[in-house]
Amino acid sequence: MFIKCYSGGGRLLLEETLKSCPIVKRGQYHYFIHPISDGVPLVEPKLLREVAMRIIKIGNFEDVDKLVTAEAMGIPLVTTLSLYTDIPYVIMRKREYKLPGEIPVFQSTGYSKGQLYLNGIEKGDKVVIIDDVISTGGTMIAIINALKRAGAEIKDIICVIERGEGKKIVEEKTGYKIKTLVKIDVVDGKVVILRD
Amino acid sequence: MFIKCYSGGGRLLLEETLKSCPIVKRGQYHYFIHPISDGVPLVEPKLLREVAMRIIKIGNFEDVDKLVTAEAMGIPLVTTLSLYTDIPYVIMRKREYKLPGEIPVFQSTGYSKGQLYLNGIEKGDKVVIIDDVISTGGTMIAIINALKRAGAEIKDIICVIERGEGKKIVEEKTGYKIKTLVKIDVVDGKVVILRD
Repeated sequence: MFIKCYSGGGRLLLEETLKSCPIVKRGQYHYFIHPISDGVPLVEPKLLREVAMRIIKIGNFEDVDKLVTAEAMGIPLVTTLSLYTDIPYVIMRKREYKLPGEIPVFQSTGYSKGQLYLNGIEKGDKVVIIDDVISTGGTMIAIINALKRAGAEIKDIICVIERGEGKKIVEEKTGYKIKTLVKIDVVDGKVVILRD
Repeated sequence: MFIKCYSGGGRLLLEETLKSCPIVKRGQYHYFIHPISDGVPLVEPKLLREVAMRIIKIGNFEDVDKLVTAEAMGIPLVTTLSLYTDIPYVIMRKREYKLPGEIPVFQSTGYSKGQLYLNGIEKGDKVVIIDDVISTGGTMIAIINALKRAGAEIKDIICVIERGEGKKIVEEKTGYKIKTLVKIDVVDGKVVILRD
């Protein structure tokens, strides 16, 4: 696959960097810490380029009006994709602006519960949802609910990293199909690639 | 100036979009809502390109190891700059990771008080700080303090939008010079350009 050239020597940077990324334990859960999901420790532009190219390769961006993501770690992805595809984007913020038409939705993730606010979407807009990780699916449910209330037409949904059952749960609950670049788990303090 | 071509007809998109952006009142303070400072309502790639080109034009990126910003609205800027300059970047997160060497600093802004956490910087790293807005200067003080504790060499500091006295306050307190693209104020419910 042509994209392999991005990391040199036939390796894919996303998978290589995931396999060696640090793991932290919170309660009983092991979190992986990676530039795509955390912006930590360091975001390399060649990783962003590789991931954006792989998203473009599997995604349906034809006739799409807007990309949509949620604060914060979807932002590097939509920014890179927007520069490459010339499609503008909307960030669902944790902050309320009280602009006319603003749509608040409830978000529940492995980390936290709270509100997300959608602005900038018109009825009939064709959109692609982009996010860094799908694990519980809580953020994705919130984004889909907000977009449906705004009257948007969801053309595609792409998350870079899949972990756990969130993809399946969201697909069953909403009827939308979610594409991911890589599925991982954390086993014995290390990231294991389950599918790529 | 060659950059004017980005918005067509000799206008600069940043200034044009600021002048027509919505204003919301919170208590006695009027906040402007703009794609660069809020990601709302819609981030246009041509605006990102114009702003990145103008930052590159005034910034000192020679021999720089890393760009540094703070969550959340510095992220579109460092992402665009990183793709153009090939310099990797670090995001100071609001979330603690407890990685070895992580540096916590206190952040106080017009919106909120809290902690920011720096990872990914080595002693001697040459860095450029990038942010969307400087108003009270609270976030910039936090970023500078963290980088000094990490032993980084700050080569330049660039914020897109300047409002109020924060730039002057930070310069007097830290001795670093801060470059900005545009200085604004909000008068009678509208953004006014004070200097560009």
